[in-house]
Amino acid sequence: MSDERRTRANGRASRKAILVAAAEVFAERGYRGTSLTEVANRVGMTQPGLLHHFKTKDELLLAVVEDYEALSERTPSLQERLAPDRFELAEQLELLASTNARARQEQLLLTTLSAEAIPLNHPLHGYFLHRYKSFRRGLTAIFVRAQESGAMRSDVNAADVARELIATLDGLHLQWLLDPKEVNLKKAVRDYARRLTAELSPTNERARS
Amino acid sequence: MSDERRTRANGRASRKAILVAAAEVFAERGYRGTSLTEVANRVGMTQPGLLHHFKTKDELLLAVVEDYEALSERTPSLQERLAPDRFELAEQLELLASTNARARQEQLLLTTLSAEAIPLNHPLHGYFLHRYKSFRRGLTAIFVRAQESGAMRSDVNAADVARELIATLDGLHLQWLLDPKEVNLKKAVRDYARRLTAELSPTNERARS
Repeated sequence: MSDERRTRANGRASRKAILVAAAEVFAERGYRGTSLTEVANRVGMTQPGLLHHFKTKDELLLAVVEDYEALSERTPSLQERLAPDRFELAEQLELLASTNARARQEQLLLTTLSAEAIPLNHPLHGYFLHRYKSFRRGLTAIFVRAQESGAMRSDVNAADVARELIATLDGLHLQWLLDPKEVNLKKAVRDYARRLTAELSPTNERARS
Repeated sequence: MSDERRTRANGRASRKAILVAAAEVFAERGYRGTSLTEVANRVGMTQPGLLHHFKTKDELLLAVVEDYEALSERTPSLQERLAPDRFELAEQLELLASTNARARQEQLLLTTLSAEAIPLNHPLHGYFLHRYKSFRRGLTAIFVRAQESGAMRSDVNAADVARELIATLDGLHLQWLLDPKEVNLKKAVRDYARRLTAELSPTNERARS
């Protein structure tokens, strides 16, 4: 390997190591509680060494979020899994919980940063605003199509169900993260998914009408 | 008023002013993002002046939480409102949402601090762990009694419903705090409360069995 190529390879390795350490620190301490010094220490680097890769804490935070997004794109989202021709809501929610239960740190990162990002001046405020808006719209569209195809009862409001489903998942993740001894994420989501599916069943609608 | 009494009255007034300013700063920036200097500035006090009342940031945080608890005790909690002899779940959830929608800053404080308190080393970790545990247990007990009295269908698990209700409320509060233009807390909770009540109705159980 030429010196130049070796330098570039080392650069990529350090960049990756910084991103891994930064994701840990941001998850544990949030954006506001994180200092570049702490990230540099964790990765065994000097602060000038870190500043060579990321000039500011904001730049580092956005790189961590991009890295997370790139990773997420490799696994299908709930919206993608819930194709209207196979509307397996309970099964797909259980799969999601099973994946998330194995990724505690990523879930901690999301929960910590989304709450911290409520104030307008937080660097991720716009990101989370858009993320929730688009999640609500995407799920609503899927529910509307499921209602049209007869897979979901049509006497409930699709947008309400979408908003509540996202809310319940968020809240169950928070309870699990705070108290994993008492709240088992997979079981909690499975119990919820089964009740929700029973409620949304078209049979249920016919039985009542 | 004697000099000594005046000093004590001024002391109480400054203490109260510090607590109000601190609750604002903790709500906006969390515990980790808050500095005593910022709180002192907001209340128009020097830092030594503030340190006269609260020696550390932890002491100030705990005083803010105690203050919040004292305030909360003056209004009945959801558990207290849901007496088993009048199990008006939808009405009481709507009342709660209506109160919370008028107290954005308090809700921001709770949402921000509860997410920040997930790591074991956060000063409020034990507080929120206990708060959620006791909320889950209290609601479960109320649901069990409502099932026994025939006010709620008995073919659902009371503990699951309690956990999910708390989760959904938390998640709806988060979406409202992040995006008050798109998510109306009162409407979101009302829609949820009505669907939940319909689902939990004993009539619904008889119709299916």
